[in-house]
Amino acid sequence: MSSWESYLEAHQPRFVDELLSFLRIPSISAIPSHAADVQRAAEWVAARVAAAGLEHVEILPTGGHPVVYADWLHAPGKPTVLIYGHFDVQPVDPVDLWTHPPFEPHIIDGKVYARGASDDKGNMLVPILALEALLQSIGHLPVNVKVFFEGQEEIGSPQIGAFLPQHKDRFACDLVLNADGGQYSETEPAILVALRGGCGVQIDVKAAKMDLHSGLYGGVVMNPIHALVMILDSMRSRDGRITIEGFYDQIRPLTDLDRERIAAVPFDPDAIMADLDVPDLFGEAGYTPQERAWARPTLEVNGVWGGFQDPGIKTVLPSMAHAKITCRLVADQDPERIVQLLQAHVDRHTPPGVTATVTPLPFRASPYLTEGNDHGNQVVREVLVELYGREPYYVRSGGSIPVCSLFQQHLGVYSASLGFGLDDERQHSPDEFFRLASFRRGQTAYCMTLERLGR
Amino acid sequence: MSSWESYLEAHQPRFVDELLSFLRIPSISAIPSHAADVQRAAEWVAARVAAAGLEHVEILPTGGHPVVYADWLHAPGKPTVLIYGHFDVQPVDPVDLWTHPPFEPHIIDGKVYARGASDDKGNMLVPILALEALLQSIGHLPVNVKVFFEGQEEIGSPQIGAFLPQHKDRFACDLVLNADGGQYSETEPAILVALRGGCGVQIDVKAAKMDLHSGLYGGVVMNPIHALVMILDSMRSRDGRITIEGFYDQIRPLTDLDRERIAAVPFDPDAIMADLDVPDLFGEAGYTPQERAWARPTLEVNGVWGGFQDPGIKTVLPSMAHAKITCRLVADQDPERIVQLLQAHVDRHTPPGVTATVTPLPFRASPYLTEGNDHGNQVVREVLVELYGREPYYVRSGGSIPVCSLFQQHLGVYSASLGFGLDDERQHSPDEFFRLASFRRGQTAYCMTLERLGR
Repeated sequence: MSSWESYLEAHQPRFVDELLSFLRIPSISAIPSHAADVQRAAEWVAARVAAAGLEHVEILPTGGHPVVYADWLHAPGKPTVLIYGHFDVQPVDPVDLWTHPPFEPHIIDGKVYARGASDDKGNMLVPILALEALLQSIGHLPVNVKVFFEGQEEIGSPQIGAFLPQHKDRFACDLVLNADGGQYSETEPAILVALRGGCGVQIDVKAAKMDLHSGLYGGVVMNPIHALVMILDSMRSRDGRITIEGFYDQIRPLTDLDRERIAAVPFDPDAIMADLDVPDLFGEAGYTPQERAWARPTLEVNGVWGGFQDPGIKTVLPSMAHAKITCRLVADQDPERIVQLLQAHVDRHTPPGVTATVTPLPFRASPYLTEGNDHGNQVVREVLVELYGREPYYVRSGGSIPVCSLFQQHLGVYSASLGFGLDDERQHSPDEFFRLASFRRGQTAYCMTLERLGR
Repeated sequence: MSSWESYLEAHQPRFVDELLSFLRIPSISAIPSHAADVQRAAEWVAARVAAAGLEHVEILPTGGHPVVYADWLHAPGKPTVLIYGHFDVQPVDPVDLWTHPPFEPHIIDGKVYARGASDDKGNMLVPILALEALLQSIGHLPVNVKVFFEGQEEIGSPQIGAFLPQHKDRFACDLVLNADGGQYSETEPAILVALRGGCGVQIDVKAAKMDLHSGLYGGVVMNPIHALVMILDSMRSRDGRITIEGFYDQIRPLTDLDRERIAAVPFDPDAIMADLDVPDLFGEAGYTPQERAWARPTLEVNGVWGGFQDPGIKTVLPSMAHAKITCRLVADQDPERIVQLLQAHVDRHTPPGVTATVTPLPFRASPYLTEGNDHGNQVVREVLVELYGREPYYVRSGGSIPVCSLFQQHLGVYSASLGFGLDDERQHSPDEFFRLASFRRGQTAYCMTLERLGR
């Protein structure tokens, strides 16, 4: 057993305790009243990387939630590896669907349940522990290392696009290892070659300046909920195609190889339907469900509200109605342009009698696409083959990690995903969990990867 | 000055104080947690009619919010008049739009501001004060009187349809005076000849059994908000016509006389648009706005909700979406049948991938229509001419007072509206108010009307 492996083994109980402490911080980046908790999570991370033996630890302001930087740069002639992760988490509503309070972690059958357990606190703690094990056991790292841990991934990293170009020298590196990711299953590894981008808007529809009696005014003035319904219904066709004018114009078509790689990944629609308890799958005609999730754009209403929502009835004709919409985008859609198209579409489809306002939401990510044959991904592939005993699938993610395209754009490097989340771990949902076996295996994987990158 | 007029004049300050006490009770019938307040309002009314000199005061259980009964039956050979009103009020949200708290009445420039001031506590207190004035000044009433004050009008009187036939003898009468109504303006009186009926349903759309990550599942499963949007958008055409199959089948067409009477009532669309701050009026093609408000049915979404509604963003594909819908109905639409048509429509228009449940809401009122030449309305017309110095308009109400059709059906009598609310008094909206001048004039009008009915 290598000395770092012995160290990992010996310190696992403490590492799990530390994970639980980290999970107790309600660092919800989307909710302004939790900003201090996000800051507290940054301070926790800064202290933890310092304890691991990294140097030059700093909490860098971004104008929004901060970034934690640290480095260890004593491997002259070796590559410089930037390790990425995020310490912010998703909101927790509907909170009454959680079995345990989301920020009171519970370990049950080798799984730790808490908001952020899988996405991404469990996964981002893994490389910190690997770095500590290497430094404490062999006394040095096999490569130069920098870390970039951020607190705004779950809201689309709105400040990172301006922050990163201002810190190009600080973050200069040869490749990125991205700890915000996963494997295909407990026994099947995966290389991530694409991420969807994204953008979002809020639509606010106003009719009368006040709520009205539906008996006195019903039939006389437009109901803003009906107006909003018309606008939203104009955005997608019955067969799942997005009907925003120009929406598909910039898309790089799927190649035969793309479709072959996607088709090679096991996919069981019946299991998904049973798991989610839905009577059918649904999406854009002409594409498989897996292609739709990974390689086609979407437009989803994330929230809608207006008028009376309490028990009972209120015969009101409301004054306002609202919706939040986000799109997932694929190469080479430009999020700025999509926001403009959404704005123009709403302007064109707002019925008479109301005004509609479109406000961009702070979620802007360019799509990311790699062939998967860069050095980082090749080394990760070797490690995965050794750990799992089989070749990885070449997968994509339907989600967005804005920094991958930002690292490509501003630092000129590819990202190799090295995370150990699994798709059943209820990321963004009640009862999110992370497998402690993945937590443990990830630590070994990072030590192996850094060693190979140093050869 | 008649002796009852002197009495009214002398006791006005106390009457206003009593109105303020009545308005302080938050008797919101729609919100279950306010049930005790509705009961408290019933007790306040029972005590007040007893103090006025009525007899056999009882708070009658209905299975829901109660009815207050009382009578004075010492005028043999004279007609029996049933006086109607309601002591429950609408909910108050959005409460932050109120200038003063809705249950802390303020008098400003001769107007009393509070929830229920106009609809209907101010108006229903008026006949009680008139009865007191008659009994205390001349010692008797000119007719036999019964009162029917209810606590569930604002939720559509769901229990009254079963309650009234069980108490036919108790409420037997020759005509109804309805204190839940209004005049056309401060100088122009009105006779109410029609009320719209109504019914409502809640639609609950369920997709996956839990909220999902919109990146992982967007494009794979149906979004329940989009499904709800499709269902709602299928219910009304772009030109305001309701597209529920069979919805218009039972409607008695407007006659030329109906349309002439409606057209005779002044109506200023520009003033309404300015008052409500809407860019256009909107409604069913082929009818004037006044016809649409008074004599055509409507379908309005009163509330919609689903997914993430807080500040910030959450890239969620929600599990559920909900809407509350109410319809206003005209003669001879049957609310039970309309609920069935809504159910069938939702079944037919629910897209694949979700389930939709339709639950009837406790709001069921048959439309009411009279020619206006019954005895009660003829006497009310004479009184209005004397008080206002001009003929009344023959108006309709777009709102629903379910008891009018129930009184017609079960007691075989017409209702004559004798209320003094005005349309600008923000019934059901923030900053509802009632004019103290109307409060005072109404007391005289009731005394005059009862005297004339006794001749």
